This record gives sequence, structure tokens and C-alpha cells, in this order.
Amino acid sequence: MSARRVLERADELAAFTEEPGRITRPLASPALDGAMERVREWMEEAGLATRRDALGNLAGRTGEGPGTLLIGSHLDSVADAGRYDGVLGVLIALECVQELPLALELVAFADEEGMRFGSSYLGSRAYLGQLDEADLALRDASGITLREAIGEPSARLAPDDLRAYFEVHIEQGPVLEAAGEPLGVVTAIAGQSHATLVFEGEAGHAGTTPMALRRDAIAAAAEFVLATERIALDEPGLVATVGRVSVPGGAVNVIPGRAEATLDVRHAEDPARGRVIAGLRMIGEALRRRRGVRVRWSPVTEHGTTPLTLADGLAEVLPDAPRLPSGAGHDAVILSGVTDAAMLFVRCKGGISHNPAESVTEEDVAAAIDAAREFVRVAAEKACTT
Amino acid sequence: MSARRVLERADELAAFTEEPGRITRPLASPALDGAMERVREWMEEAGLATRRDALGNLAGRTGEGPGTLLIGSHLDSVADAGRYDGVLGVLIALECVQELPLALELVAFADEEGMRFGSSYLGSRAYLGQLDEADLALRDASGITLREAIGEPSARLAPDDLRAYFEVHIEQGPVLEAAGEPLGVVTAIAGQSHATLVFEGEAGHAGTTPMALRRDAIAAAAEFVLATERIALDEPGLVATVGRVSVPGGAVNVIPGRAEATLDVRHAEDPARGRVIAGLRMIGEALRRRRGVRVRWSPVTEHGTTPLTLADGLAEVLPDAPRLPSGAGHDAVILSGVTDAAMLFVRCKGGISHNPAESVTEEDVAAAIDAAREFVRVAAEKACTT
Repeated sequence: MSARRVLERADELAAFTEEPGRITRPLASPALDGAMERVREWMEEAGLATRRDALGNLAGRTGEGPGTLLIGSHLDSVADAGRYDGVLGVLIALECVQELPLALELVAFADEEGMRFGSSYLGSRAYLGQLDEADLALRDASGITLREAIGEPSARLAPDDLRAYFEVHIEQGPVLEAAGEPLGVVTAIAGQSHATLVFEGEAGHAGTTPMALRRDAIAAAAEFVLATERIALDEPGLVATVGRVSVPGGAVNVIPGRAEATLDVRHAEDPARGRVIAGLRMIGEALRRRRGVRVRWSPVTEHGTTPLTLADGLAEVLPDAPRLPSGAGHDAVILSGVTDAAMLFVRCKGGISHNPAESVTEEDVAAAIDAAREFVRVAAEKACTT
Repeated sequence: MSARRVLERADELAAFTEEPGRITRPLASPALDGAMERVREWMEEAGLATRRDALGNLAGRTGEGPGTLLIGSHLDSVADAGRYDGVLGVLIALECVQELPLALELVAFADEEGMRFGSSYLGSRAYLGQLDEADLALRDASGITLREAIGEPSARLAPDDLRAYFEVHIEQGPVLEAAGEPLGVVTAIAGQSHATLVFEGEAGHAGTTPMALRRDAIAAAAEFVLATERIALDEPGLVATVGRVSVPGGAVNVIPGRAEATLDVRHAEDPARGRVIAGLRMIGEALRRRRGVRVRWSPVTEHGTTPLTLADGLAEVLPDAPRLPSGAGHDAVILSGVTDAAMLFVRCKGGISHNPAESVTEEDVAAAIDAAREFVRVAAEKACTT
């Protein structure tokens, strides 16, 4: 019954979009504002007192407490998104409203995907009052700054007495489906390294330069791509991706003198990620010696692993559920900076996300609601006794 | 003395450009027209009767014949070109004007590089009256058609009694420099295959899709790049190049679902080129089976090898010079369709061409002028006795 309502509400929210025919709900758009206002109505029907901030975050509050238990997720989306990423966590939070020995706050963050400004976690950071001048100076693809889009940021929306954060989210990966399990306890948000690489060889005429005399930048980049794949396959739990490769100004009949690529490496244990990055840097050095192609490596972001401190508590409610790290980033990374946190993963079909094919079953959603309600009850009691 | 004049004239022609500070002389540009008119003055000083056609080709003629011996090259350039590619052959042709037992015609083609319309050999094809409606409908980057750029094409500029074509050109490769030889006899223009390849895998989340479950299009493309290089290294005389690689719509945190690449394969013997193409198609098939990444292969152009029928005659004048195929295309490909042809290569520094660093020595140019004059004399005599 609750699960059916969650799925129906997800269908309804899918209609809030900037692009007819597909779901695209960026920060500071009429579509996102419409979705937030609809959720606000549902919060108020559930008896919550609501408020919003300049960024567009929505919070709804009930009860009094010696502290606040926060539950929620985000309502913004990528372009051509599915209907459950973020939305499912907000809607399941609405099913968890109950009498508790402390205050309960529901939150719907306005920017987790970072689609519009290429940012990270603007929603949860604004909620905690952490936006700075650099954030406000970010520009979208049309050159509009965040400050121009939202005006001056509001003061911190979060209460000062946060005791715990809890988020339900689709897995966005195939592990639970492969294990035949509806739910999983997230142990940590994997650390990430992002880098850009430039391979500098020597351009030449494709018809007249013998193979042995070439310093081909794309051949060096290709070796790097395959070394990345092989090293990642050899390190359990590690994922590494070369998402972009290009030959600027390249032509069919010119040996590439320059190639560019991006690298994304993730692991739930920072030392494993560090080992792999160090190994890939050695591959880069070998390419310079062996091929005469210099590899310039520019780190873009470097985030350590975020352990979820309430994972054991969630596992008590779900003793048989698999425990797994999250390879994707979530707002729990930011909330973990100020309070204890837990995340529950729900199986999604084919592990697919960021795609209209995102799919969950009513049974799995029902199981997630049951587990979430129970965890919220237990966590609230523990938060009041410790 | 002649060599010095050739180098000084090359310097003077370098000033005709569409881009101040670098040499860029496309078809149907004021810069190319200026260069043509300056060469026309030099032709007339040398006693030649000149004429031009709508495309911009320039021909200069002397003597009477039982046939015509044609010498020349092209005056158009790539963007940011050197000063000798094409120009050297036209200027050395001017040094070959002499009394002959048949008519001598000098030619400066207006389009060999194909920079503006992405075409092949418009200059020599127009000279022979071979332009067709498809050529006239070609569009440049601004959408202007060739017909709009030049008006209606002229009738064939070439005389009907061509007996031979001879072209001097910088090598555009490092073979003569490595051999310590100033001049080389070109045996053939290597056959070329150009193709575009699309690798179709499955996009996915870089953080949540385990390595073993991926169908990564760029990893498949990387294997293809390295297989191309390895197979080319194993086939003597073959060159193969992947000049462009891209991941359309790619992002740092998305497993590439699609990658695109270009392929250029050249060899002076068609069966060797065919073997390598067949081998690479098998690699594509293996990638489908092993990685679940489909490789769609679209042939773009396919040119067989053009043997230069007068290579032995040129070798008689230069008995000790290396014989080598040309990996680059030249107007001799087109002229070979209607007459016998020979080409003489001049050593260029570092094998560099299509670059401001193109460089030749005065001594090498002097040797080229001597050999060219002698070959023109011998070839004219032979053409009149056979």
C-alpha cells in the first residue's frame, strides 16, 4: 500500500521536467521547483512544518527533540534521467513519518547530480550553510553564475542538533541483482580520484612516416586505457574508467601528436586506490621512456572514502542483507562531515541508472519501506540513549 | 645559381597567404591567385605562353611537338604549411625549360591538398577535364559549393597529346635523410584505404559497474588501435594510422557506450594492404565476441597502388639513388590515368611536411635541378622515338 503510493508518486514527479518526453530536472529550474512544491504538499499532508532555502532545498519537520534525525535524498536529476534516482529516497522518507523520541526532519536536496554547474553536492552543502564564494561564482553552460541563478544564499537550513542522517537510494549497480537480494547495507562511499591526462607525442604524415619512427599519442593513450582496465581487474573492488578520449585537431591522415583523456578511479579503501593511481603513473612514465610520448597528469578531484558510521546499526535491522560500498557519490558524503550516517540500497533492474530504463519492483520498495521505518525507530531510540 | 633562385622564389611565394604569419593557401583564394599570377610572370619571362582555367590552374607552354611533355606540381597548401610542398616542384619545373624535340608544358595545379573542400586532386582532374557534378556540389566549411566558388568549370586545359608527366616533390618522409641520399626515384604511389569505425558497447556508471560486467567501447577501440600498430609493424612497407578517436557525449564518470575512430592504411602493393585490412576486420570480429562490443566498419575511400611507369627511365639518370614508394598521394595518381609518369623526391629535413619547419638544402635542390633537366631531356627524346 505504502509501496504502491511511492511508485505512483514517482510517476507523478516524472512529469516535472525541462524537456518534454524525458526527465531532466536541473538545479534552479521551474521543473525542479514544481517537484519540490508537490513534495511540500505531501509533507504538509503528513503533518510536517516545511521550509525552503534560496538554492531550492526543501525541509519538513515534525516533533520536538533532544536532537534531530534527518532522512531524505535529492530531487534534481541528470539529463534524460530515470524516475527513481534520488526521488525514491525522498518518497520513502515520507513513509517513515512516525512518533519518535526526537525531532524528525525530511529533506529533499536541490542539487546532488551537479548537472547544471558541474558541481558536487550543492544541495546538502547549502543545507549545512557550507556554500562559499567559489561555489557562487560557478557558471553554467550559458555563462550564468550560481549567484545569478539563486540570488544570495540563505542562512543554514539545517537545525544545529543533527543526531543522524539516513538515506535510501537505488543501488545504481548490479551487485544486489546478481546476489538475488532486494536490499543492501552501504558500508562506505568509495573514495574517488579524477584526473585528466594529456599524451604528447609528435604529429606526422600518415603516409610517409614509417611505423618504427612514430611517436603516436593515440597509441600511447590506447596502452594507458588497456593498462587501466587490466590493473582494475586485478584489484578486487576497484573500478577505473577512461570516460573521454580525444585527438584535438586530429585528421584521418595525420599521426596524432596529442591525445587527451580522463580517468576515474574508485575504491572503498583509500590505500587500494592509492596503489592503483601509483601504478598508473608508472605506466605513464613507461610510455615516455618506451614510446617517447610524454604523459602529463593533472589531478582534478581527490576524495577519500567516507565510512558510514551507522552501517552496523542498519545491519542489525537487516541481518541477512549484503553489505557493500557505494561506488557512486551521495549526499551522505557531506552529511557524514557533521553527523553519523547510514544508507540503504534498493535493488534496481540491470543495475541501470541515469537512464529512462531505471526500474524497481513494488516488492523491493515495500521491503525498503519496512526496513527504513524500523531503522528510523531504532536509530531514534539509540540517539536518545547515547 | 638556379638552386638559389628556386629557394628565393619559394620565400617570395610564402608571402602569398590567407593568414598573416603563416602559410595557408586554399583553392579559389586571393592568396593562391596571387601566387599563380607571380608564377605566370616567371613563366612568361622564361618565354612560355600561359593560360589559366576557371579552377585557377596555370599552364605555360613552349615549343612545338609531336606531343607534349608535362612538368609541374601544385601551389595550393594546407593550413599553416611549409614553403616547399608543391611549390618546389613548380619552381624546379621552371628551371627545366630548354630546347626539346617536343612541346614542353609547365603546370601549377590549384588544388592538390583538398583543404577547402575535403576533396582529392581537383586541380589535376580539372586540368584533364574530369570534374563532374558531384565535384561541383562539394561544399566548404561555410557551405559554399565549388560551383559557387569558381563558376562553371572551363573546358579541359590539358593538350590532347600528353606523352609524359614528371613531378619533383619533397619526400615528406624520413627515408632519404636516414639513407644519407639527397634524391630518390619514386616507384609507385601507395594504395590507400580510409575507413571510419564505430565501436558500440554499453554506457554505464563509472562508480557502480564492476569491471567484469562492462562492455566498454573505448577499451575495445584501444585494443583496435594497438592491434593496428602491431600488424603494421609486422608488415614491411606498410603504414597504418588511427588519426581520430572520440567518445561522443563522453563524461569522466560514464563508461563509454560508443567510440568512433578513423583508419588509414597504405602500402605500395595492393595485396599486402588487402591482407592487413582483412586482419583488422578479424580483430573487429574478435572484439565483438570477446568484449560484446560491436565494431561497425565503413570504408570511405579505397585507392589501388599507382605504379609510376617512367620510374626505370628516371633511375637511368640517377642510377645510385634509392628507389622508394610514395606513401603520400600526388597529382601523378591522376596523370597516370592518361599518360606515363615519373616522380623525383628531394630529401627534406626530419621528414617534416605540412608544417612551417619544412626545410630543404640548396645543395639538394641543385642536385634535383640537374637530375630533372637531364631526365626531361632524355624523356623527351624517348617520347619522340617510341
